[in-house]
Amino acid sequence: MIQIKTNKRNELIDITSKIQKIILESKISSGACILYIPHTTAGIIINENADPDVKTDLLAALGAMVPKINFLHGEGNSDSHLKSLICGKEKILIVENNTLVLGTWDGIYFAEFDGPRNRKVFVKLIE
Amino acid sequence: MIQIKTNKRNELIDITSKIQKIILESKISSGACILYIPHTTAGIIINENADPDVKTDLLAALGAMVPKINFLHGEGNSDSHLKSLICGKEKILIVENNTLVLGTWDGIYFAEFDGPRNRKVFVKLIE
Amino acid sequence: MIQIKTNKRNELIDITSKIQKIILESKISSGACILYIPHTTAGIIINENADPDVKTDLLAALGAMVPKINFLHGEGNSDSHLKSLICGKEKILIVENNTLVLGTWDGIYFAEFDGPRNRKVFVKLIE
Repeated sequence: MIQIKTNKRNELIDITSKIQKIILESKISSGACILYIPHTTAGIIINENADPDVKTDLLAALGAMVPKINFLHGEGNSDSHLKSLICGKEKILIVENNTLVLGTWDGIYFAEFDGPRNRKVFVKLIE
Repeated sequence: MIQIKTNKRNELIDITSKIQKIILESKISSGACILYIPHTTAGIIINENADPDVKTDLLAALGAMVPKINFLHGEGNSDSHLKSLICGKEKILIVENNTLVLGTWDGIYFAEFDGPRNRKVFVKLIE
Repeated sequence: MIQIKTNKRNELIDITSKIQKIILESKISSGACILYIPHTTAGIIINENADPDVKTDLLAALGAMVPKINFLHGEGNSDSHLKSLICGKEKILIVENNTLVLGTWDGIYFAEFDGPRNRKVFVKLIE
């Protein structure tokens, strides 16, 4: 399990190295890595880790995609639930040679949409 | 396999307990649970199971996100295909101690976008 | 691994038969098939393979969903990163009887959002 403290209402936090550390310590050679976020106002995004402007653009675009309708839910965070739905909160990744199989520019981000909060990511390895 | 009868064009139906029952009967202790929906106008949403207004808000938001363009597909359900794409129709969940690993407020919903229909969810367990 | 040459900026390419061939050659009977795209401006869509208008509608709708905001990322493809996020770039499918478990109308599409390019899809089978 990975524990995260987020600092803003909307924020992308790179968790790639934390996942890699869990895989390394497990000594698993070949298999899969399941990520699951036990929260309903956060998600996981796998996207570019090079230019930080991409993170900013993705958060801004998600914000602008939330339609201007009257939400009923009283907590005022229906936009956060919608963004969680769009991103998804479970992912599966391939593991080979005791490491994640990723593209050159891939970073795995915890996507906070209703922070700041203390958050968790469950990590399950399958051999 | 889970069989569902939906009642409206757009509807979220909680299938969490039906999945839990399949896991319980399988006696699988630790592993993963794959969900797959063999339909192209439905999806799976994992989100809040407490306040039912969240479900209403998510369905309304998805409807409002469908752009007002001229769709070519003759069946008049291109919006349904798009909502299926946004939600996704396959998910993977973690299983520990013969039960799903979920967050406190997580419900797993069959998301109908072109009902009413008879629908299926395939459930595959991996140990 | 599947290699693809895309021809347009936005394009859906059916890779179902290429995945089926990998499964057939593996002789795996029952398990799962993980797909992973090591690119940040492409995704995977599982949707209708019958009427080609559905593909056209989905690409048009994704284009229209990109909000008209000022993107910061200098490469001019922030829309492509956003579409990759919406579709997702990892999927898990069920395998039974040495074949994919799909719905009648399901096709698996490589979704190009910043082509033309040479692209890859990683395929991992779990028994």
